[in-house]
Amino acid sequence: MDAALRLEEQMTAIGRRAREAARRMANAPRKAKDRALRAAAELLRRNASAILAANAEDVALAREKGASSAFLDRLRLDERRLEAMAAGLEQIAALEDPVGTELARWRRPNGLDIARVRVPLGVVGIIYESRPNVTADAAGLCLKAGNAAILRGGSESFRSSGAILACLHEALEEAGLPQAAVQAVPTADRAAVGMLLRLHDYVDVIVPRGGRSLIERVYAESRIPVLAHLEGICHVYLHERADPEMAVRVAVNAKMRRTGICGACETLLCDAAKAPQLLPPVLDALIREGCEIRGDETVRALEPRAKPASEEDWRTEYLDAILSVRVVDGLDEAISHINTYGSHHTDSIITEDAEAAERFLREVDSAIVLHNASTQFADGGEFGMGAEIGIATGRLHARGPVGVEQLTTFKYVVRGSGQIRPP
Amino acid sequence: MDAALRLEEQMTAIGRRAREAARRMANAPRKAKDRALRAAAELLRRNASAILAANAEDVALAREKGASSAFLDRLRLDERRLEAMAAGLEQIAALEDPVGTELARWRRPNGLDIARVRVPLGVVGIIYESRPNVTADAAGLCLKAGNAAILRGGSESFRSSGAILACLHEALEEAGLPQAAVQAVPTADRAAVGMLLRLHDYVDVIVPRGGRSLIERVYAESRIPVLAHLEGICHVYLHERADPEMAVRVAVNAKMRRTGICGACETLLCDAAKAPQLLPPVLDALIREGCEIRGDETVRALEPRAKPASEEDWRTEYLDAILSVRVVDGLDEAISHINTYGSHHTDSIITEDAEAAERFLREVDSAIVLHNASTQFADGGEFGMGAEIGIATGRLHARGPVGVEQLTTFKYVVRGSGQIRPP
Repeated sequence: MDAALRLEEQMTAIGRRAREAARRMANAPRKAKDRALRAAAELLRRNASAILAANAEDVALAREKGASSAFLDRLRLDERRLEAMAAGLEQIAALEDPVGTELARWRRPNGLDIARVRVPLGVVGIIYESRPNVTADAAGLCLKAGNAAILRGGSESFRSSGAILACLHEALEEAGLPQAAVQAVPTADRAAVGMLLRLHDYVDVIVPRGGRSLIERVYAESRIPVLAHLEGICHVYLHERADPEMAVRVAVNAKMRRTGICGACETLLCDAAKAPQLLPPVLDALIREGCEIRGDETVRALEPRAKPASEEDWRTEYLDAILSVRVVDGLDEAISHINTYGSHHTDSIITEDAEAAERFLREVDSAIVLHNASTQFADGGEFGMGAEIGIATGRLHARGPVGVEQLTTFKYVVRGSGQIRPP
Repeated sequence: MDAALRLEEQMTAIGRRAREAARRMANAPRKAKDRALRAAAELLRRNASAILAANAEDVALAREKGASSAFLDRLRLDERRLEAMAAGLEQIAALEDPVGTELARWRRPNGLDIARVRVPLGVVGIIYESRPNVTADAAGLCLKAGNAAILRGGSESFRSSGAILACLHEALEEAGLPQAAVQAVPTADRAAVGMLLRLHDYVDVIVPRGGRSLIERVYAESRIPVLAHLEGICHVYLHERADPEMAVRVAVNAKMRRTGICGACETLLCDAAKAPQLLPPVLDALIREGCEIRGDETVRALEPRAKPASEEDWRTEYLDAILSVRVVDGLDEAISHINTYGSHHTDSIITEDAEAAERFLREVDSAIVLHNASTQFADGGEFGMGAEIGIATGRLHARGPVGVEQLTTFKYVVRGSGQIRPP
């Protein structure tokens, strides 16, 4: 048999097993799910040396292939990161079980009792980079929400993910849950991704994590609904009535706390009316922290160390110590810039003017809008939602942090006493 | 310029105008939206003769082309149907405005105040059959939810829809809202549907209404998220502890009240243990009402007028006075049959056994599950949700009736006092 056909059959078998496991997981009691999560945490700790050895092999191979140091850093596991994974699973176990929660309940005049009840999504396909910790996080969240997961991590983390998966399988077995609740695509062959995206009879939602090219491919090829985190072109807007000290503090934190996360600020906007007062101290503080500034003409007149910004800069997610800066003609232009160039992820206004703030919060069309706070708060944990699988930038189903609750859906449960519908 | 290219440009222009209108609609006050809805209702009444004349032309042309009588019936408007459309718009105006509602609000230990606030979906593309009333219903629901709509009705209703659209445009104008909040695809060319499905920069969600082939095409071609109503293969399951009188009443209503709606029952299941007692009166009542029965061997032994059912029958949405009937070996087999052959739409158990009912409600994986009630209640109005655009059978975002609320999404509004995220 030809290889592609054999892979197609393997993928279909994975899908079928996942569907079957999802049916069992949907009715699994909280106790069993939490027991599996805690057992998995313990097994990660107990098998630390085997996991780290597998990871060392992955890292060595990736280095041989010339992977960048940032890539190797994401791939590398150590005792501390392994412990963080184990603790993460225990935190997920401690979360409330979302399944079965009544979201609403009402009675109709004819006596029908209608409840909207939370249920699992079903089978979740997750496609991610070579970050072994995502294997545990994503599987843990899916498991807690009563779903079955099909994981497809980056090929460079194949050995690490396999070692982590073995712990998850042992833990599921211990808890009396089906091992097929967490499966991995068995090959690094990129064709497997395309096949996963066409398994619409068995997979209910695809969650891609990764660069723009992966997400675009998923959108183009998937016949399955996608919960995607596209990119974070986040803005901080200094309104003319911004507190100058707060402007410095929030802008520096939003850009520089961690430059590589999706909630990092990529563009700073400032009202023309107060730019000469507000901007210089902000830009000076950023430059002293090692940030490159790319500004429009007004910005460069105020800060000679700034380089010129091009149209492309307003559309760029640097994920680095670079910031584009633009002076705008007030609130309307700021909102319009953000809605035009942003990625509908996370945007913040700094102002002491409550009315301006409310207009910004209402009219900026992003998953997260903030007033007087750093964009780096764009995170499920910071929102108090527990672990997350990413920040969704689409508009349907889940917008913002995707945690356990966002990995569920609902159904209507209607209780009657023999009602029939009149003609 | 070549025609396809010109159409592509027209479609892009429609998308761009819709996006711009959606931004204005998102911030439109309730008063303006309701004024537009009420004005549209009045204009439909005032322009009744022009609309009916346009519709008469559509009907004459469709008849010439040999359209079926069922098709002509859906296409045809009369005074009564026009009044129902107008009244429908007034009912939508009377609904609460979902936009701006706080769905949840909490405070974090660092003082951040986080609210989850309902906002419009954005631009909604609706593809539907030649049913002119959908033009008013769909536009009205989108308008109320603060969205912009791009409508693509069946080509045979082109004149009727155009006349209705003219009323909507005049009403939007009267209320000071952008006419581009409701646009129609300007051609009956099928290529326009494909173009609409690729307008992902401008359209946020596609709502297809129609037969299986349309929905499958939309799923295959769309790069935009889809809220689809696939089909309604609905079941009534007579548990061994069903009340015999209720079994007859509910089964007959679920099948025969209206056979052409998606909530009509297509398969009846009955426990083997009580089939000889429960089934004969149910089947006799159905046959007397003109229903054809297709049964398995046991069914045919109990009711000689039943024809044999094939495997295909369990997967068929008849939308007609035909019912497939199967005898099952208890609750487990009933649940498994429904989850395997059903379309995850609406399914009902008839039983006096509360425990069996709760297991059925929990384990049947459908948008709507009922106990002791007719499947024909699968309807937004019957749920008390007001008008609806359809019943979603997908799992993401909206499941079950898609009304005004389901045409919205949410964003997180975070209010701070200068908080920055610690390292």
